[in-house]
Amino acid sequence: MAAHTAGRSLFLGTFIHSNSLDELSYLHKTAVCVDEKGVIVALETDCDQTKAEETLYPQLGWSRGDVTVRTAKHGQFFFPGFIDTHIHASQYPNAGIFGKSTLLDWLNTYTFPMESSLASLPKARKVYTRCIQRTLSHGTTTASYYATISVPSTNLLADLCLSFGQRAFIGRCCMDNMSPDFYRDVSATTALADTRATIAHIAAIDPTNALVTPILTPRFAPSCTSELMHGLGALQKETGLPVQTHISENKNEIALVKSMFPEHASYAHVYDDHGLLGPKTILAHAVHLSEEEVELIKKRESKISHCPASNSAITSGTAKVRKLLEKGIEIGLGTDVSGGYSPSILEAARQALLVSRHVAMEGDDNSKLSIEEVLYLSTRGGAQVVGLEKKIGGFEVGMEWDAQLIGLGQVESDEADLGPVDIFGWESWPETIAKWVFNGDDRNTLAVWVKGRLVHERKL
Amino acid sequence: MAAHTAGRSLFLGTFIHSNSLDELSYLHKTAVCVDEKGVIVALETDCDQTKAEETLYPQLGWSRGDVTVRTAKHGQFFFPGFIDTHIHASQYPNAGIFGKSTLLDWLNTYTFPMESSLASLPKARKVYTRCIQRTLSHGTTTASYYATISVPSTNLLADLCLSFGQRAFIGRCCMDNMSPDFYRDVSATTALADTRATIAHIAAIDPTNALVTPILTPRFAPSCTSELMHGLGALQKETGLPVQTHISENKNEIALVKSMFPEHASYAHVYDDHGLLGPKTILAHAVHLSEEEVELIKKRESKISHCPASNSAITSGTAKVRKLLEKGIEIGLGTDVSGGYSPSILEAARQALLVSRHVAMEGDDNSKLSIEEVLYLSTRGGAQVVGLEKKIGGFEVGMEWDAQLIGLGQVESDEADLGPVDIFGWESWPETIAKWVFNGDDRNTLAVWVKGRLVHERKL
Repeated sequence: MAAHTAGRSLFLGTFIHSNSLDELSYLHKTAVCVDEKGVIVALETDCDQTKAEETLYPQLGWSRGDVTVRTAKHGQFFFPGFIDTHIHASQYPNAGIFGKSTLLDWLNTYTFPMESSLASLPKARKVYTRCIQRTLSHGTTTASYYATISVPSTNLLADLCLSFGQRAFIGRCCMDNMSPDFYRDVSATTALADTRATIAHIAAIDPTNALVTPILTPRFAPSCTSELMHGLGALQKETGLPVQTHISENKNEIALVKSMFPEHASYAHVYDDHGLLGPKTILAHAVHLSEEEVELIKKRESKISHCPASNSAITSGTAKVRKLLEKGIEIGLGTDVSGGYSPSILEAARQALLVSRHVAMEGDDNSKLSIEEVLYLSTRGGAQVVGLEKKIGGFEVGMEWDAQLIGLGQVESDEADLGPVDIFGWESWPETIAKWVFNGDDRNTLAVWVKGRLVHERKL
Repeated sequence: MAAHTAGRSLFLGTFIHSNSLDELSYLHKTAVCVDEKGVIVALETDCDQTKAEETLYPQLGWSRGDVTVRTAKHGQFFFPGFIDTHIHASQYPNAGIFGKSTLLDWLNTYTFPMESSLASLPKARKVYTRCIQRTLSHGTTTASYYATISVPSTNLLADLCLSFGQRAFIGRCCMDNMSPDFYRDVSATTALADTRATIAHIAAIDPTNALVTPILTPRFAPSCTSELMHGLGALQKETGLPVQTHISENKNEIALVKSMFPEHASYAHVYDDHGLLGPKTILAHAVHLSEEEVELIKKRESKISHCPASNSAITSGTAKVRKLLEKGIEIGLGTDVSGGYSPSILEAARQALLVSRHVAMEGDDNSKLSIEEVLYLSTRGGAQVVGLEKKIGGFEVGMEWDAQLIGLGQVESDEADLGPVDIFGWESWPETIAKWVFNGDDRNTLAVWVKGRLVHERKL
């Protein structure tokens, strides 16, 4: 796929984004100017193309011939790109394949053999290419990826993200303990050296981390020796890089951590005691945290990636998102492919709604998440989790243009097939959004931009 | 849409259907002959077109020129059509719109106003047409529909199903109690007369119920006076028609029934005491049944429609499907549009898997449903629920050809877009089916037949 280079762009029509956790902002008849660096340089309501050309262009020093114009037609709208805060690119071919397994047997049966096989670069290229194309087509403009233990294969994922234009965090999986012989780091020393090799590769291909950033990735406590975690903690302090790992996904896993690390007060303390729990740490799952762990995570300003589809599919449990939000912890959504079966954050948002209702059925009626709230988690919340809340997740002057154009099927129109949502014409805007969240899919994602560059366009 | 008339057909390739609750049968290199009445008259494994022409045609008295041949290409397969045992066609435009409501406020806020508005025939035509087209496109070959209280509008739904070729049970909603003034039957007498009017209409358009059958539809106990339920019980005895209603969906609803019908031993007894609980009764939801109710339902041989997407979406609870199956109760799946957000039985199957895992999280690890089991419920189970298990739900000589052709995306192929499932080529057949169930959608449903007639074909 030959991606387009970003130039100056004018976007016109309806823009929808989150104002706050429980409020969407609907900006109709609005103009957004994006410069050649992909930055939003003007946002004007009550503005059409003529007015934009007459009032905005002179302020920006733009002239008509230089500007690409894209208009959201009647019923279409621009929405911030989705942020997937937890996805294993290397497990993509296993999406939907998990049987009745739970975490620990799932790892051994399905996951380690697949990840290990991606040491083959031709296979890794095929899998990563498809994963990036798919997630882009679902509107994922930023992804925090787990690759594998293989350096060349992990570096290839970084290369491909840069080439396709997806904003990404790239993690080489660190695992020198309790892992199968055919798939493990030989020692803490080699694991740290290999991690540095990937950091160096990304520094070479994207020196300012404009698009691609390395992320330190201790797989999860049971896969890591204390020596390796101390080494990664020190590397974090040295480099300032973000960290991603798993926490408290499954009860057997928690018991395992307790038995392996008896000297630490809790699962969260294991990471904290190794210098891995900080404001740049993304903790996936966080299903069964104790009160003390929640307090510690809040104190350290660590972030949580909520992965509802995965938690239901492999029977992990129901994360208590409302309680975490009320503590003031910053939360985004993760597809967790392939514990999660779907590469779509829209599906993750739908599942977050449903799982929050299962928490309500357990007795906490206040737990229910609204459409507005899950869309916040998909965009602004995800941006906080990956530390990019000033750059992406909403439409504001100074932010970058990571966006998707959404179109829904109008029952009475002769347009090409616009997917699974039927709009009859009498729906309010909030009802339209609800229909999109519950029945929409990649067919409704007509175009996707990252940093101003068109990275996906649906063939119609 | 001008549907094709059924002629003689030869289908070739891979056929997959349920052998039993937990086993799928994979018939490769198989030939199926379907006669002009839509009946399967031959099924031969290890057979290609030449062999079929040389050995099957002579037995059937067929000659080549009379037969349409359709081959499932590499990676494609024929699967029995899905059976939706519970869907409100009249609520279709509200799919996805329910906010944080639960059953009783959902009815008043969203449902009654929409159903009432379909007294307008032009509006009803638009809504029912779209609902039938959509469900057909998702592979639903049989649906048990709720329409509205309006006779002309309910009759129109029957006309449209016949015209589009979808096998259907058509229920005029009976509700003469506890309903809003703008949407209720005036009395038990008018409700019964109106129900007879719809029965008469269907007798006129489809005298042998080859495709369309009336179904007696007391909305649910709280909406019906005892007089109306007694009348419907008597009408059932007189006509032998099937019955559909709701039971034990939501805890507030159960309390309401208890307060309205204090002289009856339970919610299930309310129906039983009015002659409405028999082997032809479809009970939707059955989430919170007591042991005694389960025993009574088993004794009466009544059927259950499990509606997992709806039960999660409007926070009703988790149905204990494994326990009901172990009792020997016959169960199918329902989309329950628009308590359920999706018109797809594949989505209902996926949600049945996920909900069964939530039941496991509540402590019953045995509750988990497999891919094989939810596909059984979607086909053979649904056929039992609507009393058509000898006609539809599987591929056997003497059964009718209600089927769908499924195609999944091959990553290395240049074919047209085959939807959201990526097949890399190394998957086993059970893994392929798991991928379809978890990530497939209507794009994978390439063609649909009912009673031998092609009723939907995807435009590629």
